[in-house]
Amino acid sequence: MNKKLVDMSINEFCKELASSSPAPGGGSTGALAGALAAALATMVSNLTIGKKKYAEVEESMLKIKEEARLLMSKMMSLIDDDTNAFNQVMAAFRMPKDSQEDKKERSKAIQLAMKGAADVPLEIARLSVGVSNLCLKVAKDGNENAVTDAGVGARLSEASFYAGVYNVKINLSSIKDEDYVNNANKVIEDLASELEKNVKPVYEIVSKL
Amino acid sequence: MNKKLVDMSINEFCKELASSSPAPGGGSTGALAGALAAALATMVSNLTIGKKKYAEVEESMLKIKEEARLLMSKMMSLIDDDTNAFNQVMAAFRMPKDSQEDKKERSKAIQLAMKGAADVPLEIARLSVGVSNLCLKVAKDGNENAVTDAGVGARLSEASFYAGVYNVKINLSSIKDEDYVNNANKVIEDLASELEKNVKPVYEIVSKL
Repeated sequence: MNKKLVDMSINEFCKELASSSPAPGGGSTGALAGALAAALATMVSNLTIGKKKYAEVEESMLKIKEEARLLMSKMMSLIDDDTNAFNQVMAAFRMPKDSQEDKKERSKAIQLAMKGAADVPLEIARLSVGVSNLCLKVAKDGNENAVTDAGVGARLSEASFYAGVYNVKINLSSIKDEDYVNNANKVIEDLASELEKNVKPVYEIVSKL
Repeated sequence: MNKKLVDMSINEFCKELASSSPAPGGGSTGALAGALAAALATMVSNLTIGKKKYAEVEESMLKIKEEARLLMSKMMSLIDDDTNAFNQVMAAFRMPKDSQEDKKERSKAIQLAMKGAADVPLEIARLSVGVSNLCLKVAKDGNENAVTDAGVGARLSEASFYAGVYNVKINLSSIKDEDYVNNANKVIEDLASELEKNVKPVYEIVSKL
């Protein structure tokens, strides 16, 4: 069994990413960006909790911290999930296509694997919006000394969101199930406007630095 | 001696980032985002080089690959540099301030360390613009099948750029050398417009997916 991507050192992961193998690629990298954004939101909440000056937001910060840690852990799982889903698509394409029966089976397997490969980045996009909301909360109410970290978190959650979106879209172009495609496009549209509402105010806060 | 950040596993780095210690923070994370973006540009060039269909751009892709690998390696160094520069600031603040002489020495050391802590993210911002330019080149001329990876690279180079900018600005607010501050602000302004010129066309290309 190959080493899990999250167990690789940063050094190793970058080198593996840069290699001529298409996986890991932008999807897994987007999940990593989302995990980093969630980690930054966690850090800002940690730097706020227990401080007298921020006693008023103590309870909400404790909640944010738990949510951020959960999102970080989910995003970390998606780093490997995305690469595994891509490898499933590759495996489906390698299925035999000698007989009519073979061809039918292969085509079915490809469609199924394609949906799997779209589901993962859709989840990355969905979770990124959640992360961006936590970055907004810590940018507004968290320790002022760490406001740049909230800002970087918001920027990374946006990058993670679009990494998810691009990788959903590229897979949708090969999926024949129209209901699936229409639904995914609708979800993306809704998420994009939600993301905007979260990150814009953060960028305004940090632009005053 | 502590373990270098780039030698930590992704798992470890995220946990260290999320902790209540302010370093590593947004600056190191921005450098990591820049390294990932450069790795994606390298990957797309690797997926283009040696392909008949892209023979015409072979030479420029080989050049892009070398530049991207260099930027990736520089960004990886900046991951640790940023945290080390922050620790230097903390060390300067811990210097004795008993006598007038102490106070003068301490104040000088703080100003010097602050400049160091601004220089590193300024370099992150500068290199990010270079990475964004390589992402534009591979999005335009690279293997079409990897266009989403070029798009994710551009998004991450933008996040890396702003991570640099925010961390320069927060340090500038404590630097008394006006020439240094004015120069840094001017550099950031120029870089921001250059970044825009690189990422906008990439976002247009991938929005057509």
